[in-house]
Amino acid sequence: MSDKWLVGVDLGGTTTKIAFVSFYGEIVHKWEIPTDTSENGKNIIVDIAKSIDHHLDELGETKAKLKGVGMGAPGPVDMDNGIIYEAVNLGWEKNTPLKDLLEVETGLPCVIDNDANCAALGEMWKGAGNGAKDIVAVTLGTGVGGGVITNGDIVHGSKGAAGEIGHITVMPEGGFQCNCGKTGCLETVASATGVVRLALQALEESSEDSVLRSGLQTEGVLSAKEIFDAAREGDTLAVSIVDKLAFYLGLAIANLGNALNPDRIVLGGGVSKAGEVLLSPVDKYFNSFAFPTVASSTAISIAKLGNDAGVIGGAWLVKNKLD
Amino acid sequence: MSDKWLVGVDLGGTTTKIAFVSFYGEIVHKWEIPTDTSENGKNIIVDIAKSIDHHLDELGETKAKLKGVGMGAPGPVDMDNGIIYEAVNLGWEKNTPLKDLLEVETGLPCVIDNDANCAALGEMWKGAGNGAKDIVAVTLGTGVGGGVITNGDIVHGSKGAAGEIGHITVMPEGGFQCNCGKTGCLETVASATGVVRLALQALEESSEDSVLRSGLQTEGVLSAKEIFDAAREGDTLAVSIVDKLAFYLGLAIANLGNALNPDRIVLGGGVSKAGEVLLSPVDKYFNSFAFPTVASSTAISIAKLGNDAGVIGGAWLVKNKLD
Repeated sequence: MSDKWLVGVDLGGTTTKIAFVSFYGEIVHKWEIPTDTSENGKNIIVDIAKSIDHHLDELGETKAKLKGVGMGAPGPVDMDNGIIYEAVNLGWEKNTPLKDLLEVETGLPCVIDNDANCAALGEMWKGAGNGAKDIVAVTLGTGVGGGVITNGDIVHGSKGAAGEIGHITVMPEGGFQCNCGKTGCLETVASATGVVRLALQALEESSEDSVLRSGLQTEGVLSAKEIFDAAREGDTLAVSIVDKLAFYLGLAIANLGNALNPDRIVLGGGVSKAGEVLLSPVDKYFNSFAFPTVASSTAISIAKLGNDAGVIGGAWLVKNKLD
Repeated sequence: MSDKWLVGVDLGGTTTKIAFVSFYGEIVHKWEIPTDTSENGKNIIVDIAKSIDHHLDELGETKAKLKGVGMGAPGPVDMDNGIIYEAVNLGWEKNTPLKDLLEVETGLPCVIDNDANCAALGEMWKGAGNGAKDIVAVTLGTGVGGGVITNGDIVHGSKGAAGEIGHITVMPEGGFQCNCGKTGCLETVASATGVVRLALQALEESSEDSVLRSGLQTEGVLSAKEIFDAAREGDTLAVSIVDKLAFYLGLAIANLGNALNPDRIVLGGGVSKAGEVLLSPVDKYFNSFAFPTVASSTAISIAKLGNDAGVIGGAWLVKNKLD
């Protein structure tokens, strides 16, 4: 073990999270800077490099204290060559050589991966994965993303499209249209917008009394949080909507379990904050769709690191991929 | 590279296949012996050891020519500890220390894995995988089995249940009962018995004319081969049965693709011998259920090594796991 620090960077479209992390995965110091996407994002890397220098100064340390930089980037990544294929939210050109640019500006060895993969690595190392070497992380946010870790390492697949868990087909017939071009994707029913879609459909198809109906009528909109809150209070229609989401999510993760038998499937993102009201029916469906040995040996749990998962996963990359 | 030979062993319930394989994966010499399951299978390992000695003698070589033994065993395996959890077909006790027994009798370093995993490794190394480092192998036989390889290595999962591809749930509602205890498993519709089950259901539900109906009436039974043959001849009902199988199989492997984006998904086993009449509709459904990048970068193909996949995979284990 070294007493150097690992630098984890979680590059987002609005803010960039940065942390100095010990070799044991403890955050020593963390902060955020805005991501400047003006002028095709030409300042992004320089801003990060300057900010690292500035914080080193403040802490009375020099660059010699740093082992390297590990960055999670918002787009599909060719990790071996350090290239980000696409990063539409940042304004960058296709196939930007992110690793090289980062090394030039920071003067440190760097390694990059996709942000969802970094979050999965963070959870494996220091979060709900609890050191397990086979985990699947599913992020239920505005969309549904994921990372697959087998034998202790991220699976990238042929063209970096492994972990597209949001695009697992759960409604092979009569499914909702997805942004990806196909229909019936998990994302269309298990994201924050997906659960609202299920609710609007249920309200339209039934005339059952529900706090969701009155809420929708007064406010004109419905949020995922309102649906989970109503289900928690026992609103029958809301309970049936959450049950439907849980059916599709349970089916998708049970089939991931049947293929990979991971130690743990970790659910993160905004929707996962619903907690027990979601986890309990998901568990029920997972157990009914999973092969018996998988049902008894693959655990389902809620992500633990929240916003820190990405920087901790970035630090893991430095520790494990730079030597 | 060494000029030693790798010994691959594919231990089956009826016969055991053994081969001497070069470091380049070429079979130098191969043969079979019966598997003696009498007296709780106590002769199995000794028979294999004697047979290896005998064939070495015949070829004018000594044990010094052999690097080690890699065995695929018919049951779930704890590879790290060299234990086979269960091998009902062989008569062995639970948790038999197979690796240790094999090392004692052969006097060679040994490594074991599950037989479906060995077949997948063989296909990766020398068969349809064509050296790809991410492949999924699906064996469509009496049952449906599989092996998942990521980053060039087999995924075992938490309790050795990774690769239970036959138990992916493809009919979440109203599915057929599976031997595993749950319903709607891929195996209930995509195995040799599964396609017959689909055919019997189709014949019962429709009164459509079909060569399958007349065949069933004269012979009293129906085989998977007859169904594929009839579909190849254009029998409408047979075509719709194969299309239904292809729908479920395409759905299952597309979702494996969405999770893992392997370079290749290899279909093996007796049912895969149907060839194009099966592969073509499977491709169609795969493309409609797979995320676009996955559809364009994950290829589907038929296994190439046939009965040699297991011994070549065993040899791969010796080459890659014993140093």
